[in-house]
Amino acid sequence: MIPPDHPRYRSLVIRERLARCAREGVVALEGLAAHGRAEAFDYLIGEKSTATAREAARVAAALVHKARHPVLSVNGNTAALAADECARFQEVTGCGVEVNLFHRSEERIARITRLLEEAGATVLKGAPERLIPLQHDRALCLPNGIGSADLVLGPLEDGDRCEALRAMGRTVVTIDLNPLSRTARTATLTVVDELTRAMPLITEAYREMSPGEADALVQNLDNHYLLQAAIAEIVRELSRALD
Amino acid sequence: MIPPDHPRYRSLVIRERLARCAREGVVALEGLAAHGRAEAFDYLIGEKSTATAREAARVAAALVHKARHPVLSVNGNTAALAADECARFQEVTGCGVEVNLFHRSEERIARITRLLEEAGATVLKGAPERLIPLQHDRALCLPNGIGSADLVLGPLEDGDRCEALRAMGRTVVTIDLNPLSRTARTATLTVVDELTRAMPLITEAYREMSPGEADALVQNLDNHYLLQAAIAEIVRELSRALD
Repeated sequence: MIPPDHPRYRSLVIRERLARCAREGVVALEGLAAHGRAEAFDYLIGEKSTATAREAARVAAALVHKARHPVLSVNGNTAALAADECARFQEVTGCGVEVNLFHRSEERIARITRLLEEAGATVLKGAPERLIPLQHDRALCLPNGIGSADLVLGPLEDGDRCEALRAMGRTVVTIDLNPLSRTARTATLTVVDELTRAMPLITEAYREMSPGEADALVQNLDNHYLLQAAIAEIVRELSRALD
Repeated sequence: MIPPDHPRYRSLVIRERLARCAREGVVALEGLAAHGRAEAFDYLIGEKSTATAREAARVAAALVHKARHPVLSVNGNTAALAADECARFQEVTGCGVEVNLFHRSEERIARITRLLEEAGATVLKGAPERLIPLQHDRALCLPNGIGSADLVLGPLEDGDRCEALRAMGRTVVTIDLNPLSRTARTATLTVVDELTRAMPLITEAYREMSPGEADALVQNLDNHYLLQAAIAEIVRELSRALD
């Protein structure tokens, strides 16, 4: 058991949850390493939503407002970490929710779907087709889901899929703690924040947003500027450790 | 399969090896997340041994030179990543090699021992005793190994054990990619570098070092200075991404 007074209690509890979900087959083993990378970057931003992350979350909400058919793409890590937050996001925005996996098996799809449904989400189902030009199984998606979405919100997205969706003219909103990653730089918009903190920020911003505000935020969208600000925040945090 | 022209091929191949070793029980699931954290920090130093890391590796070699009974402490990740490098280090330095695990079981000890022996290492065996004041199983070590070592080289060390060993008056040399970690700050010396790059640097520095050089390096040892330099290198690397 992790003692509650441990300086990094929350982070350790989440890590244990991920390891448990890996034992149950929800999270892929490679997903545990991906989570570790996210932890390191979260550590570097001080394990809190920065001013830039809050700003980006508002722009993300604006993009969802303007979308005709937004779909939340959920993988194993997302479901393990934030099934409740995904369900709440769907409840507020009415978006589609689709399970899309790199390490795909029918059993994993079923387990992740169940986890999302237990949290209250409605999950898209049907026969997947190879609708994204990719070699691996993230190419597989539903014609009435990601296949026809104009906006894909993909937390913990991978670089290849992000590039392919952008090349297809889709709006991609990602939540990625690494502001230097290919995903972060390729997405229409990147929220550099931890998933369970970022999702509620986007949901609440969406709930409070007027159509006029959404228009203005989308018109001024500048992902490059937001990523630069996120990198500068890490540099500032690290520099505090220097004499 | 990962395409060899992928920009981060080496990192992805190593990650797959770790996941395979987790399936086989060599690497703990929590070890996969730890590896992901290391990957993130390695990414931030440009996935190469920095000037500071090379300097620290020389000081590490000097400390091993001066030690009466140095012991290399190996956990699952270390064996999975660097069994060959550990065997080579032992061949050159004549140090003891002991398996010491947080998630300890006789089966994991046996698997990791076999992996090290297949790489050519001689692994210390015997009845472990609770010789380090810790609650968890990393307290267990061999009287003729870590129990009586004056220097413990612990790549991928954890903070609690590092503090306990230091409080017992032992010299602790660690290899840790996070220069901000408790381990990095508590160790006698921290090499901020990736394990499979750092181990050969230490081994080769040891091989070429004269007793006089070793004396001088140990006399001028300043872990705080080395950590500050490592943080400054990350800040410089990140700042290059800023306009």
